[in-house]
Amino acid sequence: MSAFITFEGGDGCGKSSQSRALLQHLQRERVPALLTREPGGTALGESISRWLKWHKETELSAAGELLLFSASRNQLVNEVIAPALKRGETVICDRFYDSTLAYQGYGRGLDLDIIKQLNDLAAEGLKPTFTILLDIPADQGLARKNAASRDRFEKEELAFHEQVRQGYLQLARNEPQRFLVVDALLPKKDIAAIIWTRVTKLLSP
Amino acid sequence: MSAFITFEGGDGCGKSSQSRALLQHLQRERVPALLTREPGGTALGESISRWLKWHKETELSAAGELLLFSASRNQLVNEVIAPALKRGETVICDRFYDSTLAYQGYGRGLDLDIIKQLNDLAAEGLKPTFTILLDIPADQGLARKNAASRDRFEKEELAFHEQVRQGYLQLARNEPQRFLVVDALLPKKDIAAIIWTRVTKLLSP
Repeated sequence: MSAFITFEGGDGCGKSSQSRALLQHLQRERVPALLTREPGGTALGESISRWLKWHKETELSAAGELLLFSASRNQLVNEVIAPALKRGETVICDRFYDSTLAYQGYGRGLDLDIIKQLNDLAAEGLKPTFTILLDIPADQGLARKNAASRDRFEKEELAFHEQVRQGYLQLARNEPQRFLVVDALLPKKDIAAIIWTRVTKLLSP
Repeated sequence: MSAFITFEGGDGCGKSSQSRALLQHLQRERVPALLTREPGGTALGESISRWLKWHKETELSAAGELLLFSASRNQLVNEVIAPALKRGETVICDRFYDSTLAYQGYGRGLDLDIIKQLNDLAAEGLKPTFTILLDIPADQGLARKNAASRDRFEKEELAFHEQVRQGYLQLARNEPQRFLVVDALLPKKDIAAIIWTRVTKLLSP
C-alpha cells in the first residue's frame, strides 16, 4: 500500500536528513517512493519559497505568509504529490500543512480555523497518512543552524520558536493516530530505526 | 475625504483607461491620489502576476489562482493601499477583490463563502469605499483584445467570460450602495463624465 508521509518539526530538528534516510531505506526495500519538500518542490513553489525566506526588501504580513505557503502547497499537491500517489508511489514530504498551523497559527497567532480551511483548500482535501514530528527544544534546534545562513523564520526570536514547538505538540495530541512524536535529540541512527519500525507497519498490507 | 475606489469589469471593458482618466481628473483638481492595480502593484505582486497570466509550463488549479491573487492582494494592501489611505490620499485600484469573486467564484465555480473569507483575510479587512463596474457583453470585450497578446484568462472560452459578467452584475445587485454600474459601450468621454459626477459627490464633505 502506498502512503503519504510527512515530516514536521522546528528548525534544526533534523527533518531533511531523516526524510532522506527514509527515502533511501524505502528504495533499498524496492518500495517506489518520492521525496519532496515545502515550500518548493515545483518551479512556482521554489519561486515562492525565495520570497518567503530570503527577500529582504519585501516585508510580508502573517496573512501574506499563510497565502504564499498555501499557494506553494497547492501547486505541489497538484503537480507532484497527487500524481505520484496515483501511480502507487509512497510520497515523503519534508513539511506539509501542519507547518502552517504551527508557524502561522501557533507562532504568528492567526486564526486556527481559517488556517484549517485554507489547508484543506490548498491540499485539495488530501491528508497525510502518517506524520513524523521530530520534537526538539527550540534553543537546541536553533543552535544547530549556522547564524550566518539563517532564513527569515530561523531569525525569529526564541519565544516564537517555542510557541511553534508547543503548537506542534498540541497538533500531535489532537491526532495521536496520525502523529509519531520522536525525540530529535536521540542519535540519528536511533531516530531512523524508530521511524522505520512504524513505516514498515504502515506499509505492510 | 479620501476614498478607496476600485474599477471592475470583464476583459476589454476599458478599466485601465478609465482608471487613468480618473486619476488625471483628480490630479487636475489637486486631490492627492494614487493609482495601482491587481494583480501586481508591488515587486511580489508583479512576480505573482507573471505566474498567473503568462507562465505556460505551469498549470494552475482554480484554488492555486485564488491563493496567488490573494497573496498579491495582501501585499498590495499592506505595502501600498493602506499607507496611502493613512496619508489621506484617494486610492484608485484597477481590479480588487470583486475580481476574485467574479473570476474564481462565478467563473471557475469555487465556493463564494470561502472566497469572501479569503478576500477579507487578504485585504486585512479593508473594503472599497466605491466600486465602478464597467459592464460589457463578454464577446464585445474580448473582441477589443488582440488575439495574439491574450493572457491565460483572456484565452478562456466565451462561456467563462459570460459567467464572469453575470457574476459581476450579481455582486452589484448585492451591494447597490457600493457599486456604480456603467455601460462600457458608451463613448469613453461619457463614461468618464458619469464616473466623475459620482466621485465628486463621494469626495465632497
